[in-house]
Amino acid sequence: MTDMKDDVGRIEWRIRVDDNGSSDQVLAPESGPVNGFRRALKCLIANKFILGLWMFLEKVWHLGNDDPRKVIHCLKVGIALSLVSLFYYMRPLYDGVGGTAMWAVMTVVVVFEYTVGATISKCLNRATGTCLAGLLALGIHWVASKSGDKFEPIITGASLFVLASAATFSRFIPAVKKRFDYGAMIFILTFSLVSVSGYRVEKLFDMAKQRSSTIIIGTSLCILTSMLVFPIWAGQELHCLITRNMEKLAKSLECCVAEYFDDGEKTTNDSVKNLLAYKCVLNSKATEESMANFARWEPAHGNFNFQHPWNQYLKIGASMRDCAYCIEALKSCIPHKNQASKSMKKHLSDICHKVNSISSFILRELAINLETKKKSSNMSISIEEMNTSVQELKNYLKSLPGLVLTPRSTATSETIISSERDHKTEPLILTSNNSIPLVEVIPLVTFASLLIEIPARIEAIVDAVEELANKAEFKLAPDDKPKQNEQNIKNVTEQLNLHEKTMKTLESV
Amino acid sequence: MTDMKDDVGRIEWRIRVDDNGSSDQVLAPESGPVNGFRRALKCLIANKFILGLWMFLEKVWHLGNDDPRKVIHCLKVGIALSLVSLFYYMRPLYDGVGGTAMWAVMTVVVVFEYTVGATISKCLNRATGTCLAGLLALGIHWVASKSGDKFEPIITGASLFVLASAATFSRFIPAVKKRFDYGAMIFILTFSLVSVSGYRVEKLFDMAKQRSSTIIIGTSLCILTSMLVFPIWAGQELHCLITRNMEKLAKSLECCVAEYFDDGEKTTNDSVKNLLAYKCVLNSKATEESMANFARWEPAHGNFNFQHPWNQYLKIGASMRDCAYCIEALKSCIPHKNQASKSMKKHLSDICHKVNSISSFILRELAINLETKKKSSNMSISIEEMNTSVQELKNYLKSLPGLVLTPRSTATSETIISSERDHKTEPLILTSNNSIPLVEVIPLVTFASLLIEIPARIEAIVDAVEELANKAEFKLAPDDKPKQNEQNIKNVTEQLNLHEKTMKTLESV
Repeated sequence: MTDMKDDVGRIEWRIRVDDNGSSDQVLAPESGPVNGFRRALKCLIANKFILGLWMFLEKVWHLGNDDPRKVIHCLKVGIALSLVSLFYYMRPLYDGVGGTAMWAVMTVVVVFEYTVGATISKCLNRATGTCLAGLLALGIHWVASKSGDKFEPIITGASLFVLASAATFSRFIPAVKKRFDYGAMIFILTFSLVSVSGYRVEKLFDMAKQRSSTIIIGTSLCILTSMLVFPIWAGQELHCLITRNMEKLAKSLECCVAEYFDDGEKTTNDSVKNLLAYKCVLNSKATEESMANFARWEPAHGNFNFQHPWNQYLKIGASMRDCAYCIEALKSCIPHKNQASKSMKKHLSDICHKVNSISSFILRELAINLETKKKSSNMSISIEEMNTSVQELKNYLKSLPGLVLTPRSTATSETIISSERDHKTEPLILTSNNSIPLVEVIPLVTFASLLIEIPARIEAIVDAVEELANKAEFKLAPDDKPKQNEQNIKNVTEQLNLHEKTMKTLESV
Repeated sequence: MTDMKDDVGRIEWRIRVDDNGSSDQVLAPESGPVNGFRRALKCLIANKFILGLWMFLEKVWHLGNDDPRKVIHCLKVGIALSLVSLFYYMRPLYDGVGGTAMWAVMTVVVVFEYTVGATISKCLNRATGTCLAGLLALGIHWVASKSGDKFEPIITGASLFVLASAATFSRFIPAVKKRFDYGAMIFILTFSLVSVSGYRVEKLFDMAKQRSSTIIIGTSLCILTSMLVFPIWAGQELHCLITRNMEKLAKSLECCVAEYFDDGEKTTNDSVKNLLAYKCVLNSKATEESMANFARWEPAHGNFNFQHPWNQYLKIGASMRDCAYCIEALKSCIPHKNQASKSMKKHLSDICHKVNSISSFILRELAINLETKKKSSNMSISIEEMNTSVQELKNYLKSLPGLVLTPRSTATSETIISSERDHKTEPLILTSNNSIPLVEVIPLVTFASLLIEIPARIEAIVDAVEELANKAEFKLAPDDKPKQNEQNIKNVTEQLNLHEKTMKTLESV
């Protein structure tokens, strides 16, 4: 790496020298051919293409360096392909399956995916699609061959047209699309190949047998490689994605409130990053759905059973997105923070910080519960605390005096007071000195009422997580000392940072 | 269709009868065999499986009925497959390309996509990937064959491992992933097939020639079919998606404000649907991105040039999502609408409606501008109007009297008044009768300040659309009479409703 950086430095330096090309010539009056060579070299290096290529390679290097699992996945593909190509290189195996060995190679290339679940799903789809289509094509071929030379091409052609159209249409049906899209495509592919070659090739049954055996070889090789060599489980990834997103929500919420009540301090890059962490939650819907879809195919792994309620994670994700929308609105208050009355802000600050800290504590606690697959008995207490703090905030807002909607009185104060005395109510006297214009109060109460909305949405997340805990039979945490939890938070944060990088991969896949 | 509904009704009726089976028997004491037959029939019909199948078929029917373009797409796939299978059925063509005709069939199945852009993108990827991989594999095969029997399998195997791993890794690079993912897969596929069969099959050049010719046949057939038979352009779809989403934002915004100031009336299903229309905008990011990506490959069509600035649509989409987040927050105010002070609500109602109507007018106007690809000269006037109305709302909020933060005075009124007189300010006297508790004001000002935020976000949309208009060289609308625009709104709405159904397809694809 240091070598690389040095090189970049050198290239930049050379370009800078090249920009001042004329002075360069004065400084180094060299002999003709050497000078020409140097110039050519400089041109070559200064060339934008090479620099672009260099930067591209650097990016690629970082991509692999940030997440070695990507590199491992690539090596796994290489291993699987090398294994399957042994069928070609080794004579006994080659004679066994013959020329159709290419189907095994093709299967490996097409079916091998980043996660185990995706690979299994594609393998099953491929196998099922091929078998169904093969059987159907053979049946139709048999019927067609019985119906005479005249009708044979008509029957084959018509069945191809109808079944291909129908299978294509089935790919539009959401339920099919979600799980069997690839299978439907393979169905069309196999059906058209078999029915079309059935007209010419006579050894249809042999072909079917060979093709299915090669597909079985290919798929089993893929499944074994992806499950045995550094497996990447879609379920585990989904679990980590949700846990990590919960951490991010907590971080964003904390930053948002801190930023709002923080006076004039310059925001660092790091705090901006934390503030915008919730955006990941907004954009992770598609990733969550595909992960949950793949996880369903995976066998028991880690602490997850075969029928782990993966769909429940989607519900948690949806409620987290609801919470993130609210944080988005909260964030949009920050630019107006200086319009708010400072004295009132001071009053509100403590109580808002309290709501904020208990809310983000709950989010972090939930993340820990998910991560450790434990039910926390403290959760209901925390929620009560959160609701109490929200109530405090509401009470504070309620305790603020009222607004007067009557126009500024033009009568003298005496007469008003006498009329008030008639009503026997104690009059309150205001001056502009000790009153705050409503326009300075508005930004604060907007912020406060959005902040009040957040705990309600967090409760929805808690409910969704609890439902998951019940369905997946999470156990009660043995010891719920708050101090231990704080340690847990640190540990989980570290673990999550490790996973964070790899999840970026999945989001981009 | 009416028949179908009748049938469903009958089935439901029969099941209900079946539930009260005992009374049924009493009512109809029939002879043995008839009764048995009836029971068997009832069992059959009541069977959940059949009912499920029936409902599934009904859904499928609706799917096709709602969007005939899906059906057309399926027929197009059928046509393309039938055409390509002619190469098998017709002897002269078959003799031309021989057994490799299956590659043409495979190309059609794999490459044919819903939109023209997607098809072209896949075709180009497939052709490029195949050519590159084929040339590289031939080169390596030549080198390997020169290096002796001992090294040949080592060189072939090592190159397969290295290149397959490298190409797999390239699929993780975002830029490659976005446009050349399929090409990279085809590269691996072709390279492994050629390099692996090169070891056995001697006629490598013949194979390469045949394969490339069949791929050319397959891809050109796909491109021609998708472009000539009822073409579905990704660019057109993206354009309509953005326009339609803008309409939806306008609708949601209108409904939201109307709902907030509407007292106690029951919400109809239709208004709930309109209120939640903005959710489509929140979830359309992935669709927009893939459409823009495909549209880039499309030739000039309709009113779009080849290099239409499709990326700008993504910017418009992003700013629309920002606006949708704000509407989400606005919507979350609705449950608290009854906590707001009624008298103040009445005061605010008019001005909020004004902000709302001009904001949604601008959104609709933008939708029309996009749809008709015209610049409206009225836009700047409308925006000024919007800003004026926002300023009015702000002024109204400013005009509201201030809040008193001093605790309720315990001194007698006289002493306070005398102290006030010293300050020479005119005192204001309040009673609880004509003041509104702040807690009733908060929901309203929260709503109002969120509503103030929306025009700022709409302006961002206007800017993005204007940038598009400049880049794509939209022309000035010849006549900008407001009445005509209203007519246009109706027309566009109708057109958009037509497109709406088809876009659902794309979102699900």
